[in-house]
Amino acid sequence: MRILLTNDDGIYAPGLLSLYNAFCQSHDTSVVAPEGEQSAVGHAISISSPLRVKEVYRNGKFYGHAVSGTPADAVKIAIHEILKEPPDIVISGINLGPNVGINLLYSGTVSAATESAILGLPAIAVSLNTYKEPDFSHAARFIKIFIEKVKLPKGICLNINIPALPASKIKGIAFTRQATAPLKERFEKRIDPHNRIYYWQIGNGFLSDVGKDTDVYALSQGMISITPIHYDLTHYPTLEGLLKTTRFKDHPL
Amino acid sequence: MRILLTNDDGIYAPGLLSLYNAFCQSHDTSVVAPEGEQSAVGHAISISSPLRVKEVYRNGKFYGHAVSGTPADAVKIAIHEILKEPPDIVISGINLGPNVGINLLYSGTVSAATESAILGLPAIAVSLNTYKEPDFSHAARFIKIFIEKVKLPKGICLNINIPALPASKIKGIAFTRQATAPLKERFEKRIDPHNRIYYWQIGNGFLSDVGKDTDVYALSQGMISITPIHYDLTHYPTLEGLLKTTRFKDHPL
Repeated sequence: MRILLTNDDGIYAPGLLSLYNAFCQSHDTSVVAPEGEQSAVGHAISISSPLRVKEVYRNGKFYGHAVSGTPADAVKIAIHEILKEPPDIVISGINLGPNVGINLLYSGTVSAATESAILGLPAIAVSLNTYKEPDFSHAARFIKIFIEKVKLPKGICLNINIPALPASKIKGIAFTRQATAPLKERFEKRIDPHNRIYYWQIGNGFLSDVGKDTDVYALSQGMISITPIHYDLTHYPTLEGLLKTTRFKDHPL
Repeated sequence: MRILLTNDDGIYAPGLLSLYNAFCQSHDTSVVAPEGEQSAVGHAISISSPLRVKEVYRNGKFYGHAVSGTPADAVKIAIHEILKEPPDIVISGINLGPNVGINLLYSGTVSAATESAILGLPAIAVSLNTYKEPDFSHAARFIKIFIEKVKLPKGICLNINIPALPASKIKGIAFTRQATAPLKERFEKRIDPHNRIYYWQIGNGFLSDVGKDTDVYALSQGMISITPIHYDLTHYPTLEGLLKTTRFKDHPL
């Protein structure tokens, strides 16, 4: 297969390298990723500033292309400019830290996969549930086994979160919905050395029950969570209700 | 009503001021918006850098708070830190230029409204379909009439796009779905004065038919388009299919 790897932690991230090492022998593997860390950039793209692309080498060997923009930029320029043929699949990750629940909206890892789906390509976002001394190897191995077995739907991407547990301790695979419970979040107010106020955003935990059918719950139980996601934001039940109303036949201007 | 106004064009944008002028006499109106332009930032938030908040005055009178981050940051810090009570509704805009189709994913205007919905507040994103010498007044008037008449659902936001036509030429209101047709896009390759390559992203038009029930189509016909959107990215039909499979009862590691 032709595989495009990208991420939001930047082209030098070990999570990306672990995917590269898992795939480069057996598949036609390309790397096009942001030059620097792009966490929490959501689905940002660069329209007001130009992009630069540079070749990156590892141990004297060509590794991939670093893009000066966001994860979505990297996918777009990979498909439209850098790659000679479109890939069979795009894999974004492996992210350092989970991407579950409301955080999907903020995730650069997920946006790279969503952008790929928009461009008509099968895509996976993959994240490991830890921020500490990660061992990405079993997560990379799982993704390799998974994509070699499964035909992915076009226009949909799979958001996969993997527990940071030894393979033998992983409880299984759960197909889940995205948790929509609101996050517990606040701002920490601090004073800088010049006596001016600044704020740090802190998010931690959930304000309400997440539901046992969610990505958050499955991951907390030591399961690999797989959530199919898409990029049509329309809320169809509300739309159907609105279409039945006769109240707005004429606009009120 | 308590109304929070925000946008992605920045606190000094005329589209925001037109909403302020429409609401400030008759409603308890607050402005909390990014300090500078934040177009195409998607649902980015600032977690690696702190936020600054400063008071902005117009003609010697307090106008609102400028936030050094993204539209989603502005909404979060407004709700969690700046406002004494949560608003009854958040209105994001009026954006200079439409926010329809796939572009919803990239839109800072829309992300501010989505963030408000995540925080449990009714929310509207509003955009005017022009980039040239805009007259925002009838769009602001429409939004005022609309929110005074309509009870908005929580957890859903309405993405409203208004034709840049005189009120008498507007054909009506259409409740629409988000068009998902892929964009025609490419990168223009240029050479800088230092003889290095750079790229500009260009998106223009659609690769396939958008459908007559979409935001894109309605706006092109001179209608006000109203699309209910939400923040649960789960693709439920695919999830239902996956839940029926027995293939992944055990994980393959």
